Order: sequence, then C-alpha cells, then structure tokens
Amino acid sequence: MSRTIPVDLPGRAYDVTVCSGCLQQAGGVLAALGGVSGVTVVADAAVAGLYGATVMDSICAAGLPANLIEIPSGESSKNLATYGQVMDRLFSLKPAFDRKAAVVALGGGVTGDLAGFVAATALRGVRWVQCPTTLLADVDASVGGKTAVDHPAGKNLIGAFHQPSAVLIDVDTLATLPERELRSGLAECIKHGFIRDASLLDTIEAHADALLAREPDLMAEFIARNVAIKAAVVVEDEKESGRRADLNYGHTIGHGIEAFAGYTQMTHGEAVSLGMVAAARVAAGRGLVGEAFVTRTERICRRMGLPVRRAGLNFDAIWQIIQHDKKNIGGKVRMVLPVAPGEVDIYDDITEGQVRAAVEFIGKK
Amino acid sequence: MSRTIPVDLPGRAYDVTVCSGCLQQAGGVLAALGGVSGVTVVADAAVAGLYGATVMDSICAAGLPANLIEIPSGESSKNLATYGQVMDRLFSLKPAFDRKAAVVALGGGVTGDLAGFVAATALRGVRWVQCPTTLLADVDASVGGKTAVDHPAGKNLIGAFHQPSAVLIDVDTLATLPERELRSGLAECIKHGFIRDASLLDTIEAHADALLAREPDLMAEFIARNVAIKAAVVVEDEKESGRRADLNYGHTIGHGIEAFAGYTQMTHGEAVSLGMVAAARVAAGRGLVGEAFVTRTERICRRMGLPVRRAGLNFDAIWQIIQHDKKNIGGKVRMVLPVAPGEVDIYDDITEGQVRAAVEFIGKK
Repeated sequence: MSRTIPVDLPGRAYDVTVCSGCLQQAGGVLAALGGVSGVTVVADAAVAGLYGATVMDSICAAGLPANLIEIPSGESSKNLATYGQVMDRLFSLKPAFDRKAAVVALGGGVTGDLAGFVAATALRGVRWVQCPTTLLADVDASVGGKTAVDHPAGKNLIGAFHQPSAVLIDVDTLATLPERELRSGLAECIKHGFIRDASLLDTIEAHADALLAREPDLMAEFIARNVAIKAAVVVEDEKESGRRADLNYGHTIGHGIEAFAGYTQMTHGEAVSLGMVAAARVAAGRGLVGEAFVTRTERICRRMGLPVRRAGLNFDAIWQIIQHDKKNIGGKVRMVLPVAPGEVDIYDDITEGQVRAAVEFIGKK
Repeated sequence: MSRTIPVDLPGRAYDVTVCSGCLQQAGGVLAALGGVSGVTVVADAAVAGLYGATVMDSICAAGLPANLIEIPSGESSKNLATYGQVMDRLFSLKPAFDRKAAVVALGGGVTGDLAGFVAATALRGVRWVQCPTTLLADVDASVGGKTAVDHPAGKNLIGAFHQPSAVLIDVDTLATLPERELRSGLAECIKHGFIRDASLLDTIEAHADALLAREPDLMAEFIARNVAIKAAVVVEDEKESGRRADLNYGHTIGHGIEAFAGYTQMTHGEAVSLGMVAAARVAAGRGLVGEAFVTRTERICRRMGLPVRRAGLNFDAIWQIIQHDKKNIGGKVRMVLPVAPGEVDIYDDITEGQVRAAVEFIGKK
C-alpha cells in the first residue's frame, strides 16, 4: 500500500510517496518528470552499499543514463569541501551534466541537504528527487526544500531553498537504521505533535512499543501523518517568514546544546528532546503552560528512548551559541513556546535568565 | 538627472537606477528596503580603493552598521575558494550576520556574480543591492538575478537565480574604467541592438565617438536603454526556459573562443564580438540573412574597437568546449541566430560543419 502526500507549493507542487519497496520505483518516477537527460545519484558510502544498486538498477531499467557519486558518511561531510568535490565529479561526467539532468539524494539528512544544495546550484539549479533512508530525513528534511551545508561558525549556514520534484520514502530502509537514529527521528515526530497535532502525541504514547519495533504498516501510516503535518506548515509559509518557524520548537536551546556537546556526541533528535523539555520549562516559567506539561514532555520523550536530562552543560557557552543562531534577528533571542498540546506560539523577548533556568533544569539529576 | 527602469518580476520587482553620483545614495536605498540589520559590502581590491569609502560613508550616514569584505581583483577570484573565504569573513562578523542583513556587490561582473551568489546562499538567501562599476556589469549582469562562480570545467557552472532588491548604476564610475573594459561592455550593447532593437544599432553608429569618449549624458541614456532591453527580456522569461536565451547571441562560439584563448587573454566583450560575427556567418550560410548583414556586424564591432578576426584558433578545441556548454541539452548544439537587424531566433540543429566554417571565417586575415 502506498500513501501519497501532496506538497501544494504554487508552481512547484510535488508528491511525497510513502510505501514499502518504493526505491525500486525511482527510475519510473524520474522518467515521469519528463525530458530528463541523465541522473546522478548522490549517496553516502554506507547507504550506497545498502541501496545504491536498487536505485541504479531502477534508473537504468527506465532507460536513463545513471551515475553514482559517493560521499563519506557522517555530518562531517556536510561542508563546502565535500560540496566542491561533488561538483568536481558532476562536471567531469561524460556525457556532460546538463540542465535537463537530475540529481537523486539517497540517504539521510546529510546527504539530502548536501545533494539538494548541489542540485540547487549546479548550472543554477536542476531537478532533484529525494529518497530519504532515515526516519529523521523521512519526516523532516524530505519536505520543504531546505538545502544546506554546514560552516565552522554553525550548522546549515550556507544553503538555498530548492524544492524537490518528488520524494520517495521507502519504509523498508528503516530496517537497517541504527536504533539511536530511529529514536532521533522520533524526536521530530514528537515535535510535530506538540506544534500541530495533540492526537499524534496520543498515538505515540499508545503505540510506543510498536513504533520502536518499526512495525511496517504502523510506521508507514505514522510517517505519512508526520509528512502531512510538515507539508501543511511549509505550504503555509515556504520561506519561514511566519509560522514555518514553529518547526523550530525545541531547536533553539536544542541547537545550543547540540553545538556545545559537539555534533558527534549527540544525535540531532537527542538535542531536540532536551530542547523541547527546556522550551516547556521556559513556557511553564512564563505561565504559558502548567508544570504537568513539562512532565508530559519528559514522559513522552523518555518513552521513545530520548534523553530529558544532560550533565555537564555550560550555560555561558550554550548562551553564546544561541545568540549566534541564524534564526535570530537583530540580537534578540526568539523561541517557539508551547501554549497547549498541539499549539505553539513565537516569542521574541526571551531573556537570558529564562534560558539559564531551563538549561539548569535539564542539567539537574 | 536620474533614470529608473523597473524590473517587474512578480513578487520580486525592483528598480534599476541610472544616474551620476548615485553611489552616494546607497545608504538611503538600503535603509528604504526596511528592517535591514546591517550591510556587508563586497568589492574587489581595486574598486574598494576607488569607491569603497563613498559607499561605506553613505551606509553609515544612513545609520546602518557596515562592513567591507575585499576580494582580489580579476576573474580568477570567481571560484568556490574565494566564495568560501567570503563566507568565512561573513560568519565571523560581530554582531553576527543575520537574515535581515544585506549584501552590497560593488564592482564589475566578477564581484556582482560572486557577491550575488554569497547573498543567494548565506543563511539560504539574504537581500542584496548591486552597484556595478563597469559598462559590462551595468548593461548585462545588473539585471536578471543570475549569480555564479566558475568551475575549472567552465564559467558560471555553479550559481543560483537570486534577484537583487535594487540596482544602482553610477555612470561616474565609468571615468575610471580601462578603455578595453569599456569596449567589452559595448559589445553587449551591440548585442542588445541585434537581438531586440535595430535603432540602438543606429545610435551606436551615429554616436560612436561620443560613446567611446564616455560623454556622461549620452552614456546614462544609452545605459538606460540597454537596461530596459535586458529587463524586458528577463521579465518575459526569468529562468531562461524560452526567449531569455536570445541574450546568448554571440555567446555560443564566443564562449568557445574565450575559453580556448584563455580568460586572461581576451575580454568577454572581445569574445562576444567575434561570436556575433561567427553567428552572423552561420546565419548567412543558412540563408537566414544576407552577406551584408555579416559586413554590418563587422563594421559596428570594429567601430567600437572590437575585434572581428582572430588568428591561431583551433577549431577542434573550440568545438569540444562548445559541446560542453551548460546551455546545451542532450548533446545538441544550440545557437541564437539573426534573422534581421533587431531580431533573432533559436536554432537547435547547428552542425559541426556550420560552426567550423564560421570559426574558419573569423580566423582569416
């Protein structure tokens, strides 16, 4: 069974397809785009080993010339140096990479962001198809067209908005996903519940074990619900001038903690989990929600195997990082805070004291 | 007297202002954009020395924090390495470069293309104002939002479409322009005449000496006419899926010759001049225009001090380069050919023999 979620951006509408085995349909999807002269698949080494042949075979079966460019696995590849290397490979292809060529991003968030930025900027932009292979990429990076590489000064500082032409989410790829990465993706799903859909939080609590066991049918349904939430937010506000910022729930202090801990020490979802607890704590401190909201946040995150406390945090260092976040404007710190389950609002007046109290809270035993 | 040409792109409309002394208005224009948190001026070393202080003073006088990032002069700066260095500088600024910050590109085409690509991709895109200081940048790069850097495999292979928020063309900057660069810009003006406005060709022939002497009033009027032609083409077809390709008149064989000769050996305009003669030759060979058209092309180009013959061209090498042009699709060579003065059409079926005859023609004494 296949589920399709339309992303109705005017002039750049595309479908996200969620199903079992749909990597084998990649070639057909590319051929259906029309006029594609050739396809370059970008995948990290690990994912290329697992699924590269499936995708390449599918593209060849559709009669399209195909090339595979491998990048080293891991967040450390998401930089201008690797981006330049992919461009070098792209522009040495024979026959030459042209404007009708397409890029396929096969892998997790790093591959999607990097290959997407390549597609956004090679020949000033070519079409691309995203095939995410991690739960985090499935529910987060796969919708919205944000592409980027990191800079030493911060994550995702260099990038572009470039919507894909199609997204194929093959839930079978979750079978090979390391446990910790599965949990990292679940953190963004929890976030979706908190910002838009309280019933998703109920589903997570009711089916916690089945989700952690990656029960395929449940997972496909669950991913589709998450993609639909993200798609609705993105369609409302593509360029993040308004409510798309809600997706940053848990990410302000979360990013600060993640950068402080070092990106290799903590998964993104672990940081978001801590960030959601911290945001709930700030909101409770301001009287926006009650203490029970903080407790429920902690309970749901814990149930999904995510951390809600972290020892050794240095507030001053984290505060420095938060102040440099690219989402801040004119020196003020901005945070998305909960006002009820499934509902958040954006606050521009967050004080150092409020953030300090929240960071100290998650630093407690 | 100030001339304003609106570029009416839906949702991203902006004005091109042509006048004497308008670099001093840069700060006011930036302040008028609204909500700008700070301004980073990118200029090459030579232009920074001539006009950097004027622009920086104007921005400071408007009450906006300003920084200047210098890049080395010349086309060799237009690459991913310099781009990365500008990003390094940008992200080390204090206070931090944020989404409300703006970039000013002050200089010729290299600076505009590079700084524009920085603006397109820093924090996934910030606003930018273009202040071109060469005739070529005034009439060509200043309209259309094409930004790019070069790759060893070819010019402008990496880039993005990112429209500026405003363009300020200060004709006073032409006073310091080297003669050869002035002529390079005139080649694009001749091109505008050939693709859209035969009366512009008449103006060039009637006022040749005054143009070459950079007579200020005439120059402002002439630049405004050229900007209006380019703006009309861009508004009709922003992403070059259709008639924007007309602007490539003279550029197919021209690019091939330019790349073969080496970008340091020949100005872009010199290559375009040779390319227009070659395109006229191809068109005459196909019976689209008469021999007199080729002769007139040569006469106008020569009158503006541009070359119409070039010794030592190697057809096979040039043919290789043309086949790799990013504007080609699916291996076919495409050229814009004249059908009458002020009128061109796009042909997808150009043969190796036709290009060979044209290259041999301009290789003759």
